[in-house]
Order: sequence, then structure tokens, then C-alpha cells
Amino acid sequence: MSSPIRIGIVGYGNLGRGVETAIGLHPDLQLVGVFTRRDPQSVTTVESTTPVYAIEELDRDRDDIDVLILCGGSRDDLPQQSPHFAARYSIVDSYDNHARIPEHFSAVDAAASAARTTAIISIGWDPGLFSLNRLMGEAILPQGHTYSFWGRGLSQGHSDALRRVPGVADGVQYTIPSEDAIAQVRAGAAPELSTRDRHTRECYVVLDDGADADEVRAAIVGMPDYFEPYDTTVHFVTAEELARDHQGMPHGGFVIRSAKSSPAHTQTIEYSLTLDSNPEFTASVLVAYARAAARMSSAGEHGAKTVFDVAPGLLSPRSAADLRKDLL
Amino acid sequence: MSSPIRIGIVGYGNLGRGVETAIGLHPDLQLVGVFTRRDPQSVTTVESTTPVYAIEELDRDRDDIDVLILCGGSRDDLPQQSPHFAARYSIVDSYDNHARIPEHFSAVDAAASAARTTAIISIGWDPGLFSLNRLMGEAILPQGHTYSFWGRGLSQGHSDALRRVPGVADGVQYTIPSEDAIAQVRAGAAPELSTRDRHTRECYVVLDDGADADEVRAAIVGMPDYFEPYDTTVHFVTAEELARDHQGMPHGGFVIRSAKSSPAHTQTIEYSLTLDSNPEFTASVLVAYARAAARMSSAGEHGAKTVFDVAPGLLSPRSAADLRKDLL
Repeated sequence: MSSPIRIGIVGYGNLGRGVETAIGLHPDLQLVGVFTRRDPQSVTTVESTTPVYAIEELDRDRDDIDVLILCGGSRDDLPQQSPHFAARYSIVDSYDNHARIPEHFSAVDAAASAARTTAIISIGWDPGLFSLNRLMGEAILPQGHTYSFWGRGLSQGHSDALRRVPGVADGVQYTIPSEDAIAQVRAGAAPELSTRDRHTRECYVVLDDGADADEVRAAIVGMPDYFEPYDTTVHFVTAEELARDHQGMPHGGFVIRSAKSSPAHTQTIEYSLTLDSNPEFTASVLVAYARAAARMSSAGEHGAKTVFDVAPGLLSPRSAADLRKDLL
Repeated sequence: MSSPIRIGIVGYGNLGRGVETAIGLHPDLQLVGVFTRRDPQSVTTVESTTPVYAIEELDRDRDDIDVLILCGGSRDDLPQQSPHFAARYSIVDSYDNHARIPEHFSAVDAAASAARTTAIISIGWDPGLFSLNRLMGEAILPQGHTYSFWGRGLSQGHSDALRRVPGVADGVQYTIPSEDAIAQVRAGAAPELSTRDRHTRECYVVLDDGADADEVRAAIVGMPDYFEPYDTTVHFVTAEELARDHQGMPHGGFVIRSAKSSPAHTQTIEYSLTLDSNPEFTASVLVAYARAAARMSSAGEHGAKTVFDVAPGLLSPRSAADLRKDLL
């Protein structure tokens, strides 16, 4: 066996913890440590043996790291961190602001190309595995429609919005794909579906003492952009119920391509995820693509890359001959 | 727009017809013609404008072909044809004898590497897209189980076996995945499932005049290898019913990866196909990979390749920048 691929984790929230756990499942990968903006002494890792360093440590050009997995947020961290670190290391990030991906790609590509590193951006499940299925669906079956559905899953952004409503002490929001819409798509009906038609929203809310339930409900379901365009249901629960039943971070979704290969024949491709833990799954995808980043870097394939640029065999620790024999 | 990719079809049964139809859906691809062992005059193509040539024509090293799509059978045609044509042209084939893929790969790789052509083998849905999902499932979630189910679909091999039973005038066989087994897998139960546990078989049989239904049924369900290891149901139908209800070639199936990303969290990835026409879908996959073969050949990536070696972006006619903007 060749020497392990050495990985550093930058940023240590739920995603960083997931990456730490995931690396432990891959014998060919080795975790060098967690790099944080916090005081390293204050960070408690999943595994007590994981070293924790100050993030500035990375500016020393450490030669014991093959790939950095960047686990910061897409709004405040990655636009700055991805180009910064790609100028020194091969990286993988989970940049997920769809509208700004071209801009992020350009900035990272400039840094990585100049530094001759490999930077795989926007890795996870959407963007990421869902993107891959959208691309393959239309490339294989050009005459059809692609539908992406998200959920049932906890939405962080919508939960935050919910908690800003006056009278709400705490709460979470689940995005739920419409069973009816999915059934139409699966049946090959090729419906025109707005985002509203495809999803409903379900809120679990703990009221502030003395708050009026009807007023709070009206404020939530009428909130522009977040809830108003959807069928939104509000359930009131106690703080105990919220803590007991709604602490997980489940998510998932579907990409369905329904298309005609000839006038008489409808073909349907469906890709779906059912995830107990959204951050742990995203972390698992990041880790597999970190392996690909190390290999592409060794092969001289530098610059910014996305899921579209990575040959699937590079994700696996197994040899090409083994993969052909066992999995093809 | 750059010049079209010029494609030849070798062999003209259901698969070749599907490839002819599929090429018509892609504006960047151009069909040069069908190359057949039959008398070209005797071949009626889907589109009356499609040229038909004798297969020997290909031995002239035609310079107006970028990729040949080989549409012959895996038992008698491809073991000879794929290396033969890879020595002159870039090719794509649908070689599907799983046990002999390594041997086929070696023979094709030797021919393609020497000739500096690109030969993508074993393209379709299994092997092919299902293989890709088996690989990605275990690369992303190493601690789990992968299950492949086939059907509901017409099995050509089992239909042929059925028609050899004395007393059977005609008939077809459908392979049906077990709903119960799929439910267990989706629920994360990680069951041990034999092939028998995963599938049942359903036969629609037209009896010869005077044949005894019970004897025929007993002969079918007891046939070693083909039917004995399965729960097999036999339905007797009239020749009219068979012609009316069972002339299609539907198929499909599932690849399900169920795995733990940590002790508390099960993650499930499911890929499924529901196909009105098995040959047209396989043809659609071949055509998308023919585009990739032309591009890899132009880029100097020669030798034999499989789905594991092809970066997904190569399957699409769209530019990398467009793909990032619209599909990522």
C-alpha cells in the first residue's frame, strides 16, 4: 500500500466534525489535524487524539499536508479562504451558493493554477452529487425534464428565519417534497412545477411565555420569500418536545430525469438520498473528493475543478483493475 | 459551434436502431452510417436517409468517422469486434459479461493503446451507470452494503430458456425485484439477501395445442439455474394476449447503498431506472459516452476506458462554464 493521503481540516463546526469522523473510516487517509480560528485549547474534538492547531499555522507552508478540507460557511468563510489556501495547498470545499459558483470558481482557479495546486469546489450533495445526476440525465436523455426535490429535511436558513419571529422562543423548520408532485414526475407526466408546487414547509415552534399562538402562526406563514410562497404548517410544541424530537439534522432529496428516447418510450432516472445526518453525509462526500484531489494534484491536473471534472475511479482507494473486476 | 462528432454504428439489431434514434436527438453528433454483415440492400433503417454499408467498408480506414458504436452481442460479436475495430477507430461497446470484463478490457486496451485510439467498454446501465453508483456508494460511505436489484423487466435469456420447454409455443419472462427485500434495504436493515431473496420471476406462456398446463408449469418452475432457484409464477395466455400485452422491452432496477457514517447515523443513496425500452436506454448511454470517447481521443487519452475513467463533464455537449453555471 502506498503512503497515506494526509488531510487537514480547516474550520470545526458540524461539518468539520463530520469530516474528522469520516476520515477515520478510510484506511488510506490520515488526519494531520484540525486548524481553527478559535483558541486550539478550547476545541474538543470527536477523537481525543486529533491534534488541534491555530489556523495561522497553515501559512507556514506545512509540507506534511496533501489536501485541506475547508469546512467553513459559504457566505463568510469560503469566498476568502478557498483562494487563500488554494495558493498553498490542494483543497476541497463545499461552496454552495449556486448563483455565485462561477465567480468562486474563477477566484479559486486563478489561485490554484498559479500555485499548481488542485482545488475541487462545491462538493457535497447539492451542489455535488445532485449536480452530477442533473448533468448525466440531460447528457444521456436530451429530450426531457429534470426535477430536483429537497427534503424531508431540516433547513438551517428557514429555521433561523423562524426564530426571528416575535413570540418564537425556539423552533425548527423542515422542507418537505410534495408526494403528489413526485408521483406526477415519476409517472412521466412532465408537469410544470413551481418551487411552491414541489415543496411544503413544516415548522415546530416553542412559544415565548404569553405569546399568542394565532398571531405567531400568521406572522410565520405570511413571511415573504421564506414562508409566504409555500404551504406552511406550524406546530406548537414544548421546549422539552423540541429537544427530544428535533435535535437531528436529517435531510435528503431527489433528482428525477423523465425523458423520451423516442416518441413511444419514456425513460426515468431517479437519484435519491435519505440522510440521518446532513453534515456527516456532506463530510463523507468531501472526504472521497479529497482523495481525488490528492491524485489529480500528483498527476499534474491543477487548477479549480468540480464534480464534473473528476473521473469517478479517482474517488475510490481501490485499483482500477479491482474496480473493473468487482464493481463494473 | 465546433464540427460535429461523426459516428458509425456497427451491427443493426434493437440496440443499433436505438443508437440511430438517439443520435438524432443530439445536434452535435452526426451519423455517418450503419455498417452491417447483412446485405446492405436488405436493411431497413429507422430513418430512410441513413446510409447502410457492408461492414468490410470499415477495414478501409475511413477518415470520416470519429467513433464507432459497436452494437453486437457480448457472446459472439464483441470479443472479436472490439479489439479489431479499436485497432483502427475509437469505439464504444456495451460488453456485459461481467465475469469476463477484465479479459475483454485487456484485449481492447492492447489494440487501442497500440493504435492510439480511445475505447470505452462495457457502457450501458449494468454494467455502466449501475457500476458507477456501486463505486460512488462505497467510496463515499465505506461502512455499509450495496444492493443491486433488476426489474421489473423482460429478460431475454430467461425468455429464450422458457421457449425451449416442451409444450411452450411462445412466451416471455419478467424479472421482478422483491418489494419486501427493497423495503428492508431502504429501512437500513442491512439484510443478508441471496439473489433468490431479491427477485422473483414471472412467465407469460402460450401453450402448444394439446399441451398439459400443469406439466409445462412443473417443467418451467423446476428448470435448474434459470427458474428453480426462484419463486416463479407461470401465467397462461393466448397468442393474441401475448402479442398485445408483452411486445415491449421494459426494464429497470435499483442500486441502493445503505451505510453508517457514524454509529448513530444511517445514510441511504438510491439510484433507480424505470425504462420503457431497455435497448433504447442502453443506446442513449452509449451515445453520450461516444461523445466522451471522441473528446478523450482528441485529448490524447488513449487505450481502453470504462465508466470509472470518464469525467462526467465529457458526456455533455455544453461548455464547462455553462455546466457550472446552470447545473452545479
